[in-house]
Amino acid sequence: MKKFQIRGINTHNFAYANSSNSKSFVMSETNGQTNGSSNGAQPQQRNPYGPHPSDFLSNVSSFQLIESTLREGEQFANAFFTTEKKIEIAKALDDFGVDYIELTSPVASEQSRSDCEAICKLGLKAKILTHIRCHMDDARVAVETGVDGVDVVIGTSQFLRQYSHGKDMSYITNQAIEVIEFVKSKGIEIRFSSEDSFRSDIVDLLNIYRTVDKIGVNRVGIADTVGCANPRQVYELVKTLKSVVHCDIECHFHDDTGCAIANAYTALEAGAKLIDVSVLGIGERNGITPLGGLMARMIAADRDYVLSKYKLHKLRDLETLVAEAVQVNIPFNNPITGFCAFTHKAGIHAKAILANPSTYEILQPSDFGLTRYIHFANRLTGWNAIKSRVDQLNLHLTDAQCKEVTAKIKKMGDIRPLNIDDVDSIIKDFHADITTPAFPPVATNNDEDVEPATKKQRLDQ
Amino acid sequence: MKKFQIRGINTHNFAYANSSNSKSFVMSETNGQTNGSSNGAQPQQRNPYGPHPSDFLSNVSSFQLIESTLREGEQFANAFFTTEKKIEIAKALDDFGVDYIELTSPVASEQSRSDCEAICKLGLKAKILTHIRCHMDDARVAVETGVDGVDVVIGTSQFLRQYSHGKDMSYITNQAIEVIEFVKSKGIEIRFSSEDSFRSDIVDLLNIYRTVDKIGVNRVGIADTVGCANPRQVYELVKTLKSVVHCDIECHFHDDTGCAIANAYTALEAGAKLIDVSVLGIGERNGITPLGGLMARMIAADRDYVLSKYKLHKLRDLETLVAEAVQVNIPFNNPITGFCAFTHKAGIHAKAILANPSTYEILQPSDFGLTRYIHFANRLTGWNAIKSRVDQLNLHLTDAQCKEVTAKIKKMGDIRPLNIDDVDSIIKDFHADITTPAFPPVATNNDEDVEPATKKQRLDQ
Repeated sequence: MKKFQIRGINTHNFAYANSSNSKSFVMSETNGQTNGSSNGAQPQQRNPYGPHPSDFLSNVSSFQLIESTLREGEQFANAFFTTEKKIEIAKALDDFGVDYIELTSPVASEQSRSDCEAICKLGLKAKILTHIRCHMDDARVAVETGVDGVDVVIGTSQFLRQYSHGKDMSYITNQAIEVIEFVKSKGIEIRFSSEDSFRSDIVDLLNIYRTVDKIGVNRVGIADTVGCANPRQVYELVKTLKSVVHCDIECHFHDDTGCAIANAYTALEAGAKLIDVSVLGIGERNGITPLGGLMARMIAADRDYVLSKYKLHKLRDLETLVAEAVQVNIPFNNPITGFCAFTHKAGIHAKAILANPSTYEILQPSDFGLTRYIHFANRLTGWNAIKSRVDQLNLHLTDAQCKEVTAKIKKMGDIRPLNIDDVDSIIKDFHADITTPAFPPVATNNDEDVEPATKKQRLDQ
Repeated sequence: MKKFQIRGINTHNFAYANSSNSKSFVMSETNGQTNGSSNGAQPQQRNPYGPHPSDFLSNVSSFQLIESTLREGEQFANAFFTTEKKIEIAKALDDFGVDYIELTSPVASEQSRSDCEAICKLGLKAKILTHIRCHMDDARVAVETGVDGVDVVIGTSQFLRQYSHGKDMSYITNQAIEVIEFVKSKGIEIRFSSEDSFRSDIVDLLNIYRTVDKIGVNRVGIADTVGCANPRQVYELVKTLKSVVHCDIECHFHDDTGCAIANAYTALEAGAKLIDVSVLGIGERNGITPLGGLMARMIAADRDYVLSKYKLHKLRDLETLVAEAVQVNIPFNNPITGFCAFTHKAGIHAKAILANPSTYEILQPSDFGLTRYIHFANRLTGWNAIKSRVDQLNLHLTDAQCKEVTAKIKKMGDIRPLNIDDVDSIIKDFHADITTPAFPPVATNNDEDVEPATKKQRLDQ
């Protein structure tokens, strides 16, 4: 795993917290949690990050995932998945608990077709989909692969109509009807999606969605193909569409402007049911809604639902698998699995986290099989964090002494980056100075700050 | 810069597009743009990503940035900025055009204080702020540093009141009044912010904001300290607050659940005026709204305003400066500057991008001093992308021949990852086979597909 380490991270520069087999820096993680848990310590308070009470159509607590690492993700610049790697990823996604796995169109290449057939034969719990252009040539091949459903897409914006396929809406509609009826006749699921939905004419969109809904598609899809939709725009379009169709609504958001997770959440609030994700968000350009980031978002909203469906503790392994396959590092600031996602540094934060993790964390690292770190070896540290370290070292200093040694540590931290050994030496030197005075203490010395335990401990050493 | 290269990226595996000194794969970038530009090719169409027409309070087209790399960013696990590095970063931020630069509290350490004083003396265009606890001890030090303003913060949620400072709302209010009046008496700007605003009691919040507004603060701040707010929640809180105070509203969003950019945008829609950002979003845990990501979001909404204020072409250098200082890689999927942000791979995308970049890009890479790539050396490639490569190689093949050679390339791409040399060899071999038949052509041969230019070129070689 060395090659996936972020350069320059001194992992020994953190205090290990919340370990079952070491002195812990933190109190119980469930203390004071209001994180959507029905058995939280303060049941009277509604989770402030939960579903909005006025959203009667919200699917925040009943969403599903269409995992597209093996389709959208294959369009990522660095992606080249062998058959074996595709199967490994598909099995890992299935184990994680995704509802659907979407695969590259079988007409993309000969290998794409045979890989699709191979994955269909794995007998996974997740339903297998393939993603094709809205064309009978593609549909005829797709239905023969053994997939559980076909995701059909066609560009409806003026840009795509003009520069991609060059067809008008009536042509698109007729083609969609033919493809949908054909796929339905094979007894498998069918989704019809527009492409670049937010730059499509709203009347065109609603017309074609109503048409395909009446024919009986399982889902209609909205796609922010260029990654520029904003949350309120998403909310309005999904809510409007929800009033027009009876089938489920699926959403696909690119992340060019960093809103793919928020847009997905807002779409669910408005009544969308399914979100397209990929591991680490890999896809065209800088990708789509990432699986891990969406899990962070959703667990803040409805922890019980998320934990009941998805094996979150497998997230890190899943991300590592895909990151290795496409030869990228997991971003330093990745939600949940970024190296610093649960690291606390400033003194004021560390103090409160030590008292109750919920003060600065609404996500519980243990939900993801991860641990929390309190970073205390730096000039922003506070005496509460240092006091914890003193306790962990099994030394005994009064609060006043902890404040004094903290000042020394901050002074050293001003001069150069500190590691944990530096801090420990400063603490130990300080402790030794206090407990081993140059002159023997006399009765008149004011040593009330030095507690008996400290004196005893010195004798023990 | 080698050490900041993402591992395993075959940069030669892309076709260079939009270069002024090479054959370009793409047509004019301004062709068909509707990207908020007042002189776009289709002025009749409102930018679908622009300010919402019903938002009378929106500051999407008049927002300001409080850049906090040197405060929030210093709380990033890996950050240790020397005085020289702080000055270098402050100058780069000022040059980029940020409105405010926020610095670590001068009471954090002795060096923090002297660094603050040094940056105040640089004579930057940006206003310099420092960020302190709501306490007279801190305020007295802060106002002596030469800053243009002080950002005061205090925890108002039950969590922070219970586990951090332990004060009640009336104590908080009295302390806030004392600090605010003291800072105002020094003739500099003052902001009062709650911390963990979304888990604070709404009545408490509105009460204290109204109080400090009446005293005359320049700004009140809302902070999503635990990074779990969602866009509609942000919209509601900001809009409500907007109806209570007359001063400006500043927002600070952590990114734990991946919504920091979307929340910032939605806050501006609701009437917030200032957004806290840091370069690459560095800060506590996985950080806050990133400067670059917000620029991507805002340029999609109002390109003219963003270009008039900020030197976007310096973004990459700024991110590289900070990434080097804190020893992280720029994430592979970073908005705008991630290695693949403007890379197009799937055949269907490449085709449309070649015809008009706006089909799959609403952001113009040239706005950021960057270029677009069409990735054609892979099994998802399409014949339009290959045809462009053929043209770039100054070879001549008919469309039918391009389709034929594309099939060969896709077949090879099924077997192993391709680089550009592989594709070029396949194309050249194919071209040679066509233009150098095993037997000399006779007059009856049907070679109408081979254009005269090809024959001529063959003679030239």
